[in-house]
Amino acid sequence: MPHRVALLERVRGEQNRGRHVPMLAIAGDSASGKTTLTRGLVGALGSDKITSMCTDDYHRYDRTERKSLPFTPLNPECNYLTIMEQHLQLLTLGQPILKPVYNHAQGTLDRPVLLEPQEFVIIEGLFPLYSKLSRACFDVTVFLDPPEPLRHKWKVNRDTSQRGYTEEQVLADLVRREPESAAFIRPQRKHADIVIRFKPTSDDNGDNLNVEILLRPTITHPDLSDILSSDTREAIHLKLIRDEDGKPVDALHVHGGAPQGMTREIEEAIWSHMNIPTPIPESIGSVGPANRSEPLAVAQLVLLYHLLAANS
Amino acid sequence: MPHRVALLERVRGEQNRGRHVPMLAIAGDSASGKTTLTRGLVGALGSDKITSMCTDDYHRYDRTERKSLPFTPLNPECNYLTIMEQHLQLLTLGQPILKPVYNHAQGTLDRPVLLEPQEFVIIEGLFPLYSKLSRACFDVTVFLDPPEPLRHKWKVNRDTSQRGYTEEQVLADLVRREPESAAFIRPQRKHADIVIRFKPTSDDNGDNLNVEILLRPTITHPDLSDILSSDTREAIHLKLIRDEDGKPVDALHVHGGAPQGMTREIEEAIWSHMNIPTPIPESIGSVGPANRSEPLAVAQLVLLYHLLAANS
Repeated sequence: MPHRVALLERVRGEQNRGRHVPMLAIAGDSASGKTTLTRGLVGALGSDKITSMCTDDYHRYDRTERKSLPFTPLNPECNYLTIMEQHLQLLTLGQPILKPVYNHAQGTLDRPVLLEPQEFVIIEGLFPLYSKLSRACFDVTVFLDPPEPLRHKWKVNRDTSQRGYTEEQVLADLVRREPESAAFIRPQRKHADIVIRFKPTSDDNGDNLNVEILLRPTITHPDLSDILSSDTREAIHLKLIRDEDGKPVDALHVHGGAPQGMTREIEEAIWSHMNIPTPIPESIGSVGPANRSEPLAVAQLVLLYHLLAANS
Repeated sequence: MPHRVALLERVRGEQNRGRHVPMLAIAGDSASGKTTLTRGLVGALGSDKITSMCTDDYHRYDRTERKSLPFTPLNPECNYLTIMEQHLQLLTLGQPILKPVYNHAQGTLDRPVLLEPQEFVIIEGLFPLYSKLSRACFDVTVFLDPPEPLRHKWKVNRDTSQRGYTEEQVLADLVRREPESAAFIRPQRKHADIVIRFKPTSDDNGDNLNVEILLRPTITHPDLSDILSSDTREAIHLKLIRDEDGKPVDALHVHGGAPQGMTREIEEAIWSHMNIPTPIPESIGSVGPANRSEPLAVAQLVLLYHLLAANS
């Protein structure tokens, strides 16, 4: 019988470069800040070093088709998740993929594009932590967990300015999506190594955000114990707490109004763990043109630390 | 270091169904008869048993883009061959793929489609035997090798009736493609287990084709020695010859004008090797509506035999 499986295995072995590409997952609901976080990381090392991809591209239906379907894009049924898993495996093994393309501006599925993994890969989207196989592809996993009112505001702003929806449409969509957010998206939080929660400060108009970064003991975080206190009256502190499920976790808190010297010290401390001779890149902490957030910078530096650590 | 490669390997192992899907490659130049051959095979077992796919879908550029490029679709550079190889490996391992789509009528690259391998897979196209990795994916490999004048006639007929070209455009295109046919397509002939050459009979207007089927000893062919003579005066004969490269090969010749009883006998003999209780399906030998070719039927039955043998 001309079974050629053994031959295929041999030829695959000859051609397999045996690479392992460090991959970071950034999961979170729609408009939870995934793209802003990713943009700073790609900017820090450069797109010749980091390949980033959004799993929204694995939508199974275009906007017109979805109108007659009983679910939203937050439903696994609405996405090619098996193909997403397959592509995540290929990328972390150093192989190129022909990635589908969802055109957010038009709501159409366009021709696919070739994507080759560079030295590092960041995958952001609704489902990267949904399945066991998908999670096994990542070295570091993050879930973005802003309070719902803040996320709703971000979603209205973005979808009305960039995706051609009216405010009423976005609000109606948020209501329609809520059951699937609860069923499929928020449960991914428990699988993340790091949970990042931006939230408004109580002392201004809400544009100046705090961040709480939960550092779970599933991976080894940079040691910041010599520069951080657990005194919650400090603008930046690291405190052992119980997560909402009761499990122990380190919570790194950075107040949006913290003095710049103080945030700079912690940023430099994390940066120094990475052994990169240049200063901290400008893209870290950038929120659009001429707008900076030190809490965002700290969150991004923690992620960059883990991405680089996975390669060493 | 949080390397999760071992975890990924374990989870992949748990989920891998360990399937091997028998795959048949039908390679050949443009308009060499690949689709006609494939259609009869899919019709014989049904599309719920055979998945077929054309590798033209792996074109890298659309028709408009190709106008400013220095090569034709026959050039490997003009195709996502690495992705084709990757998808062939996935299919023979029983995995689904998100297949790109080249729209021949419009010349555009459209949204990709999900393709799941059924019990058997047929891959037809310009490049399935081009690389070592690609060839290793197949259980049976075929190259279609009609004389160039016959293929040119077929190409003019098809491209003017179905693909929106004028006869002048097709003829100019054939001239432009010739160096790349010689460089990239015809060399695949030497890698095929079976070479099929339809050619006009000398005794009519050329619509009634003979076939010569070269059965290379790279796989085990059905034993037809008890019903076939090597007397080349017979309308159907099996003769040991030297191929154009000097290598020994069995040549099964079926004359287009052979008496139907004679071709039926050989068809039934091959069919009986497959242990299928039903009669030979009607799709075998069909050339469009109400048109039959017994030489085509014999060629298809030989391929069907090998596809089924690979599964047993």
